[in-house]
Amino acid sequence: MTSPTPADKFTFGLWTIGYNGTDPFGGPTRPPMDIVHVVTKLAELGAYGLTFHDDDLFAFGSTAAQRQSQIDRLKGALGDTGLKVPMVTTNLFSAPVFKDGGFTSNDRDVRRYALRKVLRQIDLGAELGAHTLVMWGGREGAEYDAAKDIRAALSRYREGVNMLSQYVIDKGYDIRFAIEPKPNEPRGDILLPTLGHALAFIETLEHPEMVGLNPEVGHEQMAGLNFAAGIAQALYHGKLFHIDLNGQRGIKYDQDLVFGHGDLHNAFALVDLLENGGPDGTPAYDGPRHFDYKPSRTEDESGVWDSAAANMRTYLLLKERAAAFRADPEVQEALKNARVAELSQPTLADGEGYAELLADRSAFEDFDPEPYFGGRGFGFVRLQQLALEHLLGAR
Amino acid sequence: MTSPTPADKFTFGLWTIGYNGTDPFGGPTRPPMDIVHVVTKLAELGAYGLTFHDDDLFAFGSTAAQRQSQIDRLKGALGDTGLKVPMVTTNLFSAPVFKDGGFTSNDRDVRRYALRKVLRQIDLGAELGAHTLVMWGGREGAEYDAAKDIRAALSRYREGVNMLSQYVIDKGYDIRFAIEPKPNEPRGDILLPTLGHALAFIETLEHPEMVGLNPEVGHEQMAGLNFAAGIAQALYHGKLFHIDLNGQRGIKYDQDLVFGHGDLHNAFALVDLLENGGPDGTPAYDGPRHFDYKPSRTEDESGVWDSAAANMRTYLLLKERAAAFRADPEVQEALKNARVAELSQPTLADGEGYAELLADRSAFEDFDPEPYFGGRGFGFVRLQQLALEHLLGAR
Amino acid sequence: MTSPTPADKFTFGLWTIGYNGTDPFGGPTRPPMDIVHVVTKLAELGAYGLTFHDDDLFAFGSTAAQRQSQIDRLKGALGDTGLKVPMVTTNLFSAPVFKDGGFTSNDRDVRRYALRKVLRQIDLGAELGAHTLVMWGGREGAEYDAAKDIRAALSRYREGVNMLSQYVIDKGYDIRFAIEPKPNEPRGDILLPTLGHALAFIETLEHPEMVGLNPEVGHEQMAGLNFAAGIAQALYHGKLFHIDLNGQRGIKYDQDLVFGHGDLHNAFALVDLLENGGPDGTPAYDGPRHFDYKPSRTEDESGVWDSAAANMRTYLLLKERAAAFRADPEVQEALKNARVAELSQPTLADGEGYAELLADRSAFEDFDPEPYFGGRGFGFVRLQQLALEHLLGAR
Amino acid sequence: MTSPTPADKFTFGLWTIGYNGTDPFGGPTRPPMDIVHVVTKLAELGAYGLTFHDDDLFAFGSTAAQRQSQIDRLKGALGDTGLKVPMVTTNLFSAPVFKDGGFTSNDRDVRRYALRKVLRQIDLGAELGAHTLVMWGGREGAEYDAAKDIRAALSRYREGVNMLSQYVIDKGYDIRFAIEPKPNEPRGDILLPTLGHALAFIETLEHPEMVGLNPEVGHEQMAGLNFAAGIAQALYHGKLFHIDLNGQRGIKYDQDLVFGHGDLHNAFALVDLLENGGPDGTPAYDGPRHFDYKPSRTEDESGVWDSAAANMRTYLLLKERAAAFRADPEVQEALKNARVAELSQPTLADGEGYAELLADRSAFEDFDPEPYFGGRGFGFVRLQQLALEHLLGAR
Repeated sequence: MTSPTPADKFTFGLWTIGYNGTDPFGGPTRPPMDIVHVVTKLAELGAYGLTFHDDDLFAFGSTAAQRQSQIDRLKGALGDTGLKVPMVTTNLFSAPVFKDGGFTSNDRDVRRYALRKVLRQIDLGAELGAHTLVMWGGREGAEYDAAKDIRAALSRYREGVNMLSQYVIDKGYDIRFAIEPKPNEPRGDILLPTLGHALAFIETLEHPEMVGLNPEVGHEQMAGLNFAAGIAQALYHGKLFHIDLNGQRGIKYDQDLVFGHGDLHNAFALVDLLENGGPDGTPAYDGPRHFDYKPSRTEDESGVWDSAAANMRTYLLLKERAAAFRADPEVQEALKNARVAELSQPTLADGEGYAELLADRSAFEDFDPEPYFGGRGFGFVRLQQLALEHLLGAR
Repeated sequence: MTSPTPADKFTFGLWTIGYNGTDPFGGPTRPPMDIVHVVTKLAELGAYGLTFHDDDLFAFGSTAAQRQSQIDRLKGALGDTGLKVPMVTTNLFSAPVFKDGGFTSNDRDVRRYALRKVLRQIDLGAELGAHTLVMWGGREGAEYDAAKDIRAALSRYREGVNMLSQYVIDKGYDIRFAIEPKPNEPRGDILLPTLGHALAFIETLEHPEMVGLNPEVGHEQMAGLNFAAGIAQALYHGKLFHIDLNGQRGIKYDQDLVFGHGDLHNAFALVDLLENGGPDGTPAYDGPRHFDYKPSRTEDESGVWDSAAANMRTYLLLKERAAAFRADPEVQEALKNARVAELSQPTLADGEGYAELLADRSAFEDFDPEPYFGGRGFGFVRLQQLALEHLLGAR
Repeated sequence: MTSPTPADKFTFGLWTIGYNGTDPFGGPTRPPMDIVHVVTKLAELGAYGLTFHDDDLFAFGSTAAQRQSQIDRLKGALGDTGLKVPMVTTNLFSAPVFKDGGFTSNDRDVRRYALRKVLRQIDLGAELGAHTLVMWGGREGAEYDAAKDIRAALSRYREGVNMLSQYVIDKGYDIRFAIEPKPNEPRGDILLPTLGHALAFIETLEHPEMVGLNPEVGHEQMAGLNFAAGIAQALYHGKLFHIDLNGQRGIKYDQDLVFGHGDLHNAFALVDLLENGGPDGTPAYDGPRHFDYKPSRTEDESGVWDSAAANMRTYLLLKERAAAFRADPEVQEALKNARVAELSQPTLADGEGYAELLADRSAFEDFDPEPYFGGRGFGFVRLQQLALEHLLGAR
Repeated sequence: MTSPTPADKFTFGLWTIGYNGTDPFGGPTRPPMDIVHVVTKLAELGAYGLTFHDDDLFAFGSTAAQRQSQIDRLKGALGDTGLKVPMVTTNLFSAPVFKDGGFTSNDRDVRRYALRKVLRQIDLGAELGAHTLVMWGGREGAEYDAAKDIRAALSRYREGVNMLSQYVIDKGYDIRFAIEPKPNEPRGDILLPTLGHALAFIETLEHPEMVGLNPEVGHEQMAGLNFAAGIAQALYHGKLFHIDLNGQRGIKYDQDLVFGHGDLHNAFALVDLLENGGPDGTPAYDGPRHFDYKPSRTEDESGVWDSAAANMRTYLLLKERAAAFRADPEVQEALKNARVAELSQPTLADGEGYAELLADRSAFEDFDPEPYFGGRGFGFVRLQQLALEHLLGAR
């Protein structure tokens, strides 16, 4: 297997590499990492880009000078290494002012402040060449039903995104928005809890074409949902604008493990879909493969870089396995037996409507459902076993 | 508290009252119940209507004569009692022929058969005065990722619903469609797993205005999602066409308990939303309050009717509690303190756009986030405690 | 309803009242609270006692003088108010040194340090009159299977508890140990994940009689388990040494809501069991009713005290409801119909063994299972509806 | 990889191969399979043995002649093929009479009948050479808290197991009991919901040495618990008497997928533990590797046998991968770096007690916790990545 190169488009959040180990039951286990060091190391490891929240680069409450200094140091490091910043995002969840959310805080002053904070980060993103602004509304939600008028919250969310969209249009920025859903944590229930809810919401916007999704593996899996199936629906809607790869072991707190260290079958299906799910087996998605994970709190800095490399290596291994799976004649025969491609064939014949269907006695009156009892099996288990054996490198 | 009357619009699925107790680990514990008996008893208990799958009324594979006989017996009982049939639905999940689904089976012959089965049930629904056709696609899904092309499945689902919509239009039926999402069981993962996914899908149809949702309490809760919040989003989209009320105790198999025998806080929030969430505190939903539950397998027939009555009684009790909650001046003061209504106020002033917001120094440059640390609390816990005490009838 | 008094034995962790709002996605929203203020306020609200981790009272790394000063201030406040310290516990999870656990860190030096830290806290607990030392091993676990030898970890846990037990015996302290299980968070999987696992472990100790449980509502519910049923098993084993009351809304991150703000049915069943589950309806547990919750991050200090009061008020309300439930003749009749008490009757007659049972033809050869089909229902749903209506204060 | 042979000790439940596809939303998709055919096919595939519930072999309510005829046909097939019956179990959950359980039904007549049914199956097991009687109490539980006195239920369970143990002793049978825990489904909550609860219960029996566990992969995972960690605790207690292998995809209904088609990382850890977790890397368990799975409902008979073969093939593949993992010097170095073996070293030195520990200033007073901040990382992520790469056959 070749090593990762920028052509693989692997990107990392600054907050991932920079995670200091704080969790609900303990403080930091690692010191802060300098931005220039992060950029240099990521470039050495073969990454394509870096992404960040405003507050990752310059702490909340920084002076203009402090902010600019950090931006300049980042730019210098990008110039030295060739690393890109394809995406930026805004932190509307850490500071106490956002304790009830940003776009949808019950407090209108907070909402206005939040919109301003995003506008500023859009400008910075544009300046750095980013094409995507991710919106993770982790604090947009509630613990208690009476505390939040959900319809009003959705209206305020819409109002905010509409204004931001108009700003991007008028400024002529080449930026699109990507909503990142999550079901809960840190709020008891978060607005737009799954990618489905976000897809629906997008259709109510003034510029739905400018807004898509940034789904995260672990977030959908925290609701027990099949991530690869969700990504397929996002692609069906043309809304996979960005993606967050990581690992999660079932329905529990947000783990942000290394990609592949969670549900391995689904990670395999995901890579297969992204890489081979387009027309004629081409990639179905050509954007950054963005890792939004946390190096475990037990690790020191060497563990940070080992874990960064592990994300990329696992993706490339799964890409190899998926290619072999698709190329295997026995798999092709099993797919045929399972009638997988038959589902792409329209149910109605060309030009057929309900009248013709009703007139087709073979579809109902003369159709015999009996052979499906004890017969006409789909062979799905065999197909899955072939997938497993390819995943294990055993074929 | 008054007893239920048809004005309360309580309806029951024939398959709920008629559930014989079969589950994955045991056969029936109760004999079948005659349709005339069911209708008569429901009317006595104060219900408004009955709903049914085709196969509930006449077994899969019935002859035309058997089918007609059951329809006639139902009609007679409806005439005798005044009970309505406001909704019907089609069983595309029990017979072996549907083992890989109906609209989205990999097998095209099955898909054609499924569409015919639905067309027939639409005709029957129209004949009986139903205004809603529910589509629960319980078998539309997969256990294994390679076995199902999700995008193709969504295309077939769309194709089917488009054809059915055209049929209803052309026939002049006063019927709308309502999709009932579910995350899993009986399939490992089901297509359109949450109401969010279904809302998004609807926007891709030819006649999205004809298609809405039939969300079920337990189905959303099987994904750990907040049902009342989901219903609020459905209302935001204007898509609450029908509703399935029942009880579920967390993320596990589909329990279909009596309404209120699951998450009681959320049931209270739901009834409050349905009854008081409209303009000026009017109902936000005026359709049937449909119970889709199962009388526990431990019960004999007396338990069936006790459980049916329990559903209605619990709903009415929660309606009383919600009215008292809304009327309590202390609650109103707590809502004000929590700034709940402030969220309905637009974030931008009338006529304000990003330019004006950027010019408003009070929104950012002069905004002081510091008082939110240790201050400007929202009082959400107190509000929730007031809700709890109203729920307990303690205020 | 009367207000809480010390006779109700309500106690609070110092870390609960003192929670500053830090979570994985944000820092503090509230400033630290002084120990004297906490003690004074809790006494005013009617609490019986305060509990604490060493690091709650004096920060990790405090000098001896700093530590003593805080202890003295606590003692003064206890003297002034009459508040008790019935339980103490040791923080083996926050400092970086414990990043792989305390008793079961792979690092032996850490394990030795952890034992010393506990010994010191035992001495302090004894000095303050505490009778229980709680052990929550939140960091005892792993994210990755190969990283932790579970059997070795259990052996080290046993070794540690054995030594601590011997210390308490030799010192003549009137202290027992209580293990607090949790399935996950902050570790991916925690050792002794449920009260069942802890009960089993206790039996392998040198002094099992000195070690019991401190089960927490939310921790068992994070595994989808029925808390009241778990407490009943703990009572069966004689191991309910202490209890942590709070609220959790299903399987997700650890929420630590106010007691009753989670699963309300189960909270009702729990209070009924604790208060009425002993011989002839006496209390089944007479220890502290300890609240281990977090005032929501959205609250300022007034919300902290509102939430503290809410815990106690909810408990007392549920106690009232449970008493009325038990006293209701209709409930008694429903319990009889459900044959609940019949389960306390031995299955075998007095003196009967397998030989006599085999000889009893009425038990098998002449037993007719048929009447259980369609008959001999248990009326469980009616009983549950009676419980619900009592819970709602509607009877 | 070699094909499975009886030396691998792979066994299958008759109810697994014989599963007809019935689930809560649909009837059978496959016809019944003859016992002789099942035995013959399993032998051909390389299995070691067959297990069964009484009602699997002869339907509930069979006459003595029908029962004997089926036993004779089974014996003939066993003789012809050499297949063994190492385990039997009793169905106390399917018939209506068991609708509230067997050993712990509120109805005493049912409890007596249940015990008789088990005694009969023990005799049959002994006759066929079985050494294990599995007890899965799937109906022992409740949906509603007031409906079941848990302590009484545990007492009745204990009474029953005590009597059965005495019977086995007196008869001189070489049989042990193995309890199979499950958290829920078909009951809302099941007694002894996890292996921890069952381990604790066993200690309250008259003959705890005769009773151990039969843990099932999916059952523990339905509570979100780590199965391999649970098995390690079972081994710590010396109670892994039998094991049920299958696949489950997270917290949802009981899926009973093929082994390895669920959580693949944990399946790898499990096989590694079973095969290499004994002294000096020998197997930690030498009993049957029993598959308790269901061939998916979508399959016809060829899918049944494909799925049976898949279980065994996956186990053998994982066994190969685990052996390579343990043999890899880089893994050994990573394990050393992670200090995994250091956890087997006692925390106290030989002969050391609390007095010596208190006297050791290096353990506390002179111990410096500071280097654990930003240093002394455990390298757990690298170790996990090595495990992943071995699992993928990439090393």
